[in-house]
Amino acid sequence: MVALAFDGRTARVIERAATARRHGEARLRPRLCGICNTDLELARGYMGFRGVLGHEFVADVIEADDARWIGQRVVGGINCGCGTCSRCRAGQERHCAQRTVLGILGRDGALASTFDLPERNLVAVPDTVSDEAAVFAEPLAAALRVVEQLDSLHVDWSTARVAVQGDGKLGLLCALVLADHARGVGLFGRHPGRVPLPSHVTELPASDASERGFDVIVEATGKPEGLEQALSRVAPLGSVVLKTTCAGKQELPLAPIVVDEVRVIGSRCGDLAAAVAWLERARLPIRELVSSRFALAEGEHALAQAARSGVLKVLVEGGATP
Amino acid sequence: MVALAFDGRTARVIERAATARRHGEARLRPRLCGICNTDLELARGYMGFRGVLGHEFVADVIEADDARWIGQRVVGGINCGCGTCSRCRAGQERHCAQRTVLGILGRDGALASTFDLPERNLVAVPDTVSDEAAVFAEPLAAALRVVEQLDSLHVDWSTARVAVQGDGKLGLLCALVLADHARGVGLFGRHPGRVPLPSHVTELPASDASERGFDVIVEATGKPEGLEQALSRVAPLGSVVLKTTCAGKQELPLAPIVVDEVRVIGSRCGDLAAAVAWLERARLPIRELVSSRFALAEGEHALAQAARSGVLKVLVEGGATP
Repeated sequence: MVALAFDGRTARVIERAATARRHGEARLRPRLCGICNTDLELARGYMGFRGVLGHEFVADVIEADDARWIGQRVVGGINCGCGTCSRCRAGQERHCAQRTVLGILGRDGALASTFDLPERNLVAVPDTVSDEAAVFAEPLAAALRVVEQLDSLHVDWSTARVAVQGDGKLGLLCALVLADHARGVGLFGRHPGRVPLPSHVTELPASDASERGFDVIVEATGKPEGLEQALSRVAPLGSVVLKTTCAGKQELPLAPIVVDEVRVIGSRCGDLAAAVAWLERARLPIRELVSSRFALAEGEHALAQAARSGVLKVLVEGGATP
Repeated sequence: MVALAFDGRTARVIERAATARRHGEARLRPRLCGICNTDLELARGYMGFRGVLGHEFVADVIEADDARWIGQRVVGGINCGCGTCSRCRAGQERHCAQRTVLGILGRDGALASTFDLPERNLVAVPDTVSDEAAVFAEPLAAALRVVEQLDSLHVDWSTARVAVQGDGKLGLLCALVLADHARGVGLFGRHPGRVPLPSHVTELPASDASERGFDVIVEATGKPEGLEQALSRVAPLGSVVLKTTCAGKQELPLAPIVVDEVRVIGSRCGDLAAAVAWLERARLPIRELVSSRFALAEGEHALAQAARSGVLKVLVEGGATP
């Protein structure tokens, strides 16, 4: 099989033999994969990952223990827990200490002719959702996770002043899903106008220092200094939802967190079934969100393109007919 | 009147004329005041404070608009809001942007022959609560605030693994109030055994690296590196309640907050009435918590003593007969 793999130094398209499928896992042939900033970070050595990249996908099931899956078009949760620990039993597989994560931690990813994922992670994609929409299910789930976390904090959507920092791929998705709930959403970014947004999303310059006092700020700039900027914009008793992951340490003033009793909430993956349900009832501005498409054989170029400033989603066509 | 005041360079006992009492404010004569780490920070220039120090007190009311207060023994909330903004109207006077804070921000404090506080901030102290207990009402309220915040996050006290970092004045109070709720409390500190604690509070060495995976960590070491240590000890989806305030910036790894979806919650002042209610039904180990007592005229020595390593609460006797 062909795969885009990182060997610790470079990410390259390689040819290699497929391994045997494990019990309980389905074998998938990707139709489309997406490249996200985490892939770019991994390809720079973040988390020490070695192996096949890719965790955003829509794929066809070609083998499975449960024959009902075979032939289905699916997306899937990328966290694969042990299934037996207390976290897995509590439905928190995403935080299982023994987990593997597709294309991120101890498990080969989706940028390959075929890849495997536990059958319990699969979510069927209805016919009304296109491949181009379904491939956004994973980052969309991560955006919906923000809403889930804010709901658990009893954010009052009818009054909360809400903003997102970063108008990259994830920031735009966060703004879109927050717009379902908040009366208005400020979106701080560097590329206003490139994606159509609901009229109650207001695009603001990334460096704007006058708009502050937000009850909720989602930090999705991907930049180490983003959290300090968010803390300067959040209101007392407000929440900063932190999506940005950066290797290494960052300098941060901590006293304002205490004095203003701010909550900083880390946020990672979400529920794929919820994302598919969202895609069934709403519409993503796919034409504007997708910057370019590559064949898997051109995977290295796809990565390079995704790393360019101002580029949104780069898609990679997999082995299955998209 | 006599007062322990900071002039921007040194904290000294000075003699000065009392100002006129403002409408809506009571004039108080302290019986006892406590010195806390914030006072020590302020006397080093933190927040640029100038004026009379002191925000922990039990006092007699000697003048008030509402004559029913006169002669009462009281403690009081230290945050004085404008009373008219949306935060004040929502009961969040502690976060009023125009607030003054007794002995901390724009308002002379309690380490004086007399001082003033809005009547609406006063809480009467029942006869069953001694001066020596009542003077702990302010830091005790700050400790109870932690429980209030964790309750609002729906922490399951029956299962949560709970720990406090720091066995100084505030850390000990936090451990005591958390012990009312949690099945067990770990207390990381440098001075085990100096204060009697409930049997389900387990004292652990400050540097212990084996005890981790806590669902709740209260960081009260007062040290800049405390938060990073707390992040290394908190479980995925857990909460770090940050009490430590330090001027300047601190280096911090942010990726673990995101990957483990940790919540970092700033925590400051609490409800004085709740603290007085706690003191009515429970008992503080006052003999062990109080390290020494000074007369107000010896205020400079009291500050110096409070700054010594290993010293717990230093009390200052005020103008009223304690």
